[in-house]
Amino acid sequence: MIGIDVGGANLKVVNDEGVHIHYCPLWEKAPIADTLKPYVKQGETSAAVVMSGELADCFENKLQGISFIVGEVQKAFPGARFYGMDAQFHERPVPQLAAANWLASADYLRERYAGAILLDLGSTTADIIPLGHFGSLHELTDLNRLQKGFLLYTGMLRTNIAAILQSVDLFGIPTPISSEYFATSADAHFVLGHITPDEYACDTPDHKEKTRNASLRRLARVVCADLEEIGEEGALQIAHQVYERQKAMVCNAARACAMAYGAQEILVAGIGARLFARELGAQDLNRELGPVADALPAFAVREIALRNREFSH
Amino acid sequence: MIGIDVGGANLKVVNDEGVHIHYCPLWEKAPIADTLKPYVKQGETSAAVVMSGELADCFENKLQGISFIVGEVQKAFPGARFYGMDAQFHERPVPQLAAANWLASADYLRERYAGAILLDLGSTTADIIPLGHFGSLHELTDLNRLQKGFLLYTGMLRTNIAAILQSVDLFGIPTPISSEYFATSADAHFVLGHITPDEYACDTPDHKEKTRNASLRRLARVVCADLEEIGEEGALQIAHQVYERQKAMVCNAARACAMAYGAQEILVAGIGARLFARELGAQDLNRELGPVADALPAFAVREIALRNREFSH
Repeated sequence: MIGIDVGGANLKVVNDEGVHIHYCPLWEKAPIADTLKPYVKQGETSAAVVMSGELADCFENKLQGISFIVGEVQKAFPGARFYGMDAQFHERPVPQLAAANWLASADYLRERYAGAILLDLGSTTADIIPLGHFGSLHELTDLNRLQKGFLLYTGMLRTNIAAILQSVDLFGIPTPISSEYFATSADAHFVLGHITPDEYACDTPDHKEKTRNASLRRLARVVCADLEEIGEEGALQIAHQVYERQKAMVCNAARACAMAYGAQEILVAGIGARLFARELGAQDLNRELGPVADALPAFAVREIALRNREFSH
Repeated sequence: MIGIDVGGANLKVVNDEGVHIHYCPLWEKAPIADTLKPYVKQGETSAAVVMSGELADCFENKLQGISFIVGEVQKAFPGARFYGMDAQFHERPVPQLAAANWLASADYLRERYAGAILLDLGSTTADIIPLGHFGSLHELTDLNRLQKGFLLYTGMLRTNIAAILQSVDLFGIPTPISSEYFATSADAHFVLGHITPDEYACDTPDHKEKTRNASLRRLARVVCADLEEIGEEGALQIAHQVYERQKAMVCNAARACAMAYGAQEILVAGIGARLFARELGAQDLNRELGPVADALPAFAVREIALRNREFSH
């Protein structure tokens, strides 16, 4: 059995061999079925699935997105089971399938870490989940989670810097920034050494290279400058401020959730786990689970299906 | 003679017949020369040009962008003259050509309105210019202008809502928003009745229709919701807050500039002129100049070239 998490930008698969992350942007008509068929050829016959890609704006509404994703997965795995916001598996495209990926992570971890908060920091968003309160999490929409501070729309790679900051301090001078999509959080994390070129696993805003110099150029453009105008030091000042702002946002939300729910421990998963475990003095799930912690919902939904013996009857 | 303003997203042309705005995004390899050649066929033989499109991220740096734009314009008008940040015309791609479009507007208006501030609010940005201080404006880069509050990266159409707001009040509940490019300022202004469908002159984020319902859907997606989840009222609450934030940003900057330079009057041009003249109690240049006020730099550079008899020797 494989576990699948169909996000808007990434399709994540977990099987016995480990984790496989396919950049697969739905708004560019990414071929979900074709991406999954090689796993069928490898002998996989069943799939446990979660999704969040139904929010992608190629769909008129979430149910249309759910129907599309279910249909694509079924082309490869006709008997696939889809985990929903009611913590149950479904075989049809029902509204409960919207954005249930984080709930699968919670379902998998809740018994072992009942006293903990989970922070899953991915390419685009951060999920913050009080694991000891699983019952109260059912049926929470993304809108509910935004309002509760359980969903932060900031991530390690794909976040437009103009959505993180409105102004930077450049050599001591307050400098409002451009609102264009000129650079991403990946550019900031890359030049700060937080991610490798391989981990810069999304397209660049200008469709140019993933090199230090190209990222510095993109960061300079955020203040409408050539890199030569502000130098590497200026571009690094921007990157540092992007990170400081993200760090404050994510760490404050995680700590507020821990305090509100009386949690003693914070677990961190996702591609931001190493960095933010250090910042928060938290436990890095990568150390326990290995690389599958980068694709926790895909791993979790598979474990839940195995635990429930979903495919054995 | 025609006046041309080559922006990143729009190519604006002014001739004896009036103003012609071509949506022509440079980052999608828009064909500048092909867009201009019909004017040659109509009998035009000379062109006065300003630009700001050299900042588009298809170019490695501004000089590369300037060279490309000059080359494209010269394919249609080999004798074209390009207005620069030194308030002079040039025939070659020199660094001074970067973002001199607003200076041409100032050059044209400065004698008649020496005591005024000009606010030119376009699709993407707002230029704020103290017309009585023309000499001190030469050689100001976009970076300088951001820092002085002379360039605001917010506009009537193309601004990502996630770059305007980080959170909205939705039915009384503070709601952080998605950082994706789900909706633009055009969606907000359109549902508020500030612009017509024709004036929504750029692509939509989801490449879907320019209808009231489609704009409301895009606005709802900003809080990760289907329109059915928050209703038209919820989507309109988001639109109102986008506008309030833009209004505060633009009006405060214009008033601060007027105060700093002792200006008694504010002139407003660009597609936001009607709306913001009302908000500011300012003079709408459309009333005096007519529709060319929507393409003020293209109009102005042509007037300056005529005044200077650039093409008569």
